[in-house]
Amino acid sequence: MFKVTQRIRVEWAHCDPAGIIYNPNYYIWMDSGTHLLLQAAGFDFIGRSADDSDFLGCPLVASNMEFKRPISLGDVVTLVSQVKSFGNTSFVVAHEFMGDGVPGLVARGSEVRVWAHRESQNLKKILARPMPENIRGLLAVDKVVDVSV
Amino acid sequence: MFKVTQRIRVEWAHCDPAGIIYNPNYYIWMDSGTHLLLQAAGFDFIGRSADDSDFLGCPLVASNMEFKRPISLGDVVTLVSQVKSFGNTSFVVAHEFMGDGVPGLVARGSEVRVWAHRESQNLKKILARPMPENIRGLLAVDKVVDVSV
Amino acid sequence: MFKVTQRIRVEWAHCDPAGIIYNPNYYIWMDSGTHLLLQAAGFDFIGRSADDSDFLGCPLVASNMEFKRPISLGDVVTLVSQVKSFGNTSFVVAHEFMGDGVPGLVARGSEVRVWAHRESQNLKKILARPMPENIRGLLAVDKVVDVSV
Amino acid sequence: MFKVTQRIRVEWAHCDPAGIIYNPNYYIWMDSGTHLLLQAAGFDFIGRSADDSDFLGCPLVASNMEFKRPISLGDVVTLVSQVKSFGNTSFVVAHEFMGDGVPGLVARGSEVRVWAHRESQNLKKILARPMPENIRGLLAVDKVVDVSV
Repeated sequence: MFKVTQRIRVEWAHCDPAGIIYNPNYYIWMDSGTHLLLQAAGFDFIGRSADDSDFLGCPLVASNMEFKRPISLGDVVTLVSQVKSFGNTSFVVAHEFMGDGVPGLVARGSEVRVWAHRESQNLKKILARPMPENIRGLLAVDKVVDVSV
Repeated sequence: MFKVTQRIRVEWAHCDPAGIIYNPNYYIWMDSGTHLLLQAAGFDFIGRSADDSDFLGCPLVASNMEFKRPISLGDVVTLVSQVKSFGNTSFVVAHEFMGDGVPGLVARGSEVRVWAHRESQNLKKILARPMPENIRGLLAVDKVVDVSV
Repeated sequence: MFKVTQRIRVEWAHCDPAGIIYNPNYYIWMDSGTHLLLQAAGFDFIGRSADDSDFLGCPLVASNMEFKRPISLGDVVTLVSQVKSFGNTSFVVAHEFMGDGVPGLVARGSEVRVWAHRESQNLKKILARPMPENIRGLLAVDKVVDVSV
Repeated sequence: MFKVTQRIRVEWAHCDPAGIIYNPNYYIWMDSGTHLLLQAAGFDFIGRSADDSDFLGCPLVASNMEFKRPISLGDVVTLVSQVKSFGNTSFVVAHEFMGDGVPGLVARGSEVRVWAHRESQNLKKILARPMPENIRGLLAVDKVVDVSV
């Protein structure tokens, strides 16, 4: 499968009064991983979201995460994101956070998402559609790209 | 079980370019639900976190969420939070987001948390301990409290 | 001037490793104050943002804040928001955070915003236009509304 | 003066329903710039915050920002942060966001911060102290370091 990696530094903004990462940040990073995965694979997520098309992004159906060990201010982790499976209108993205200074798995999660479109008759209604075949193909290519800025 | 409810209004800040809630906000709200649950049950979470004790809050071991239907800017949901089960050092908190204008389940999630303490020999190390018996008792009381401000 | 007030409780999510509010939260709350001010005054901000119109909200030109005293986990503040002055295409919104348990000013800020429209020839370009006269009128009414949920 | 630069990519998480950056993110990035500035200059901010010392970080007294032009999903900006002046117990940090694809100033802000300590007699009270001379010295060195991960 196509994989993107990105380096993430734990900043003051991410930490809670106990000095460890405030947990929703991991979900923010998974969301980032999925968007960068689609973009890097060759689907113009950014352009498609900005233009007048009826593409509405890839809303979540479900998500989950296991936290293996805490990391703290100043630590750097590498997030690895890839599609794990394709359903009918849904697809599952797997994410692993790997330690840097102290190697090994820090946290692991997955997201179930759908390919969303605006309904032409009712602009407020969101429809799930199958991910286009050519995009499935792009995501299935065996390659790793680092997308850190 | 003891339950807390809180009303949440979807604001501009919570919405993404597709006009629906940016998903990590649900995890932020679950986190809020758990903290308010402990506080309202009679455990002084706020005081215990601020004083010099070695109590380090209740870090997550795992969490998950199912998103049943999108809600948008201006909608109000009610979040209902309660402990679902007690493990040895862990406990599971269940959260349900109920619609207001359009009734019914919007999203449902759960968190597995531990009762964390600073280790006296190594202040950077976090230890999981059983939740004290008296606090389990408080969380098992059959009562509903609304904690909206 | 028309004023909205809202009660805000400082939660675990808002606090940093020093145990005080992570400062960008104040800017999030000011943003909320402005949106609720427009909505409560009678301008359908939510509807106008969701429909197909070319209204693009009220982006910031500048903002600032003075922090008078720290508040911490569990404290409640009341945010008071109102328009302070109208420019040509811009307007200034003033915000005051007032303490609850300990009365008095906690923080005070202001935002300079414009009334933004999509340009019909170039959908990616944002134009600033004068705020419509009738909305200025609504914001000048001498009235206070509490918008806490 | 000592300067740090960091590259920031605008992600889905940063954008609001109008498709531009939700403004408090700029304040989050300024906060990051200041912390990385102190750390890169040679002051062990991370270590000092984690150990048992009475150092409480550098809370804000005031902050402000001017937004020169909107940037959107996928754009990259470079944030340049440096101390602008030293007061008695306070210091001012200046931040500039420079465009990448389209060069030029995107936004510019500043923060007034103090050097905070826990009072030994009252652990909840925060005292502002002069920044130590040696740290002023480190921040005055004429050097630029890129701290992007």
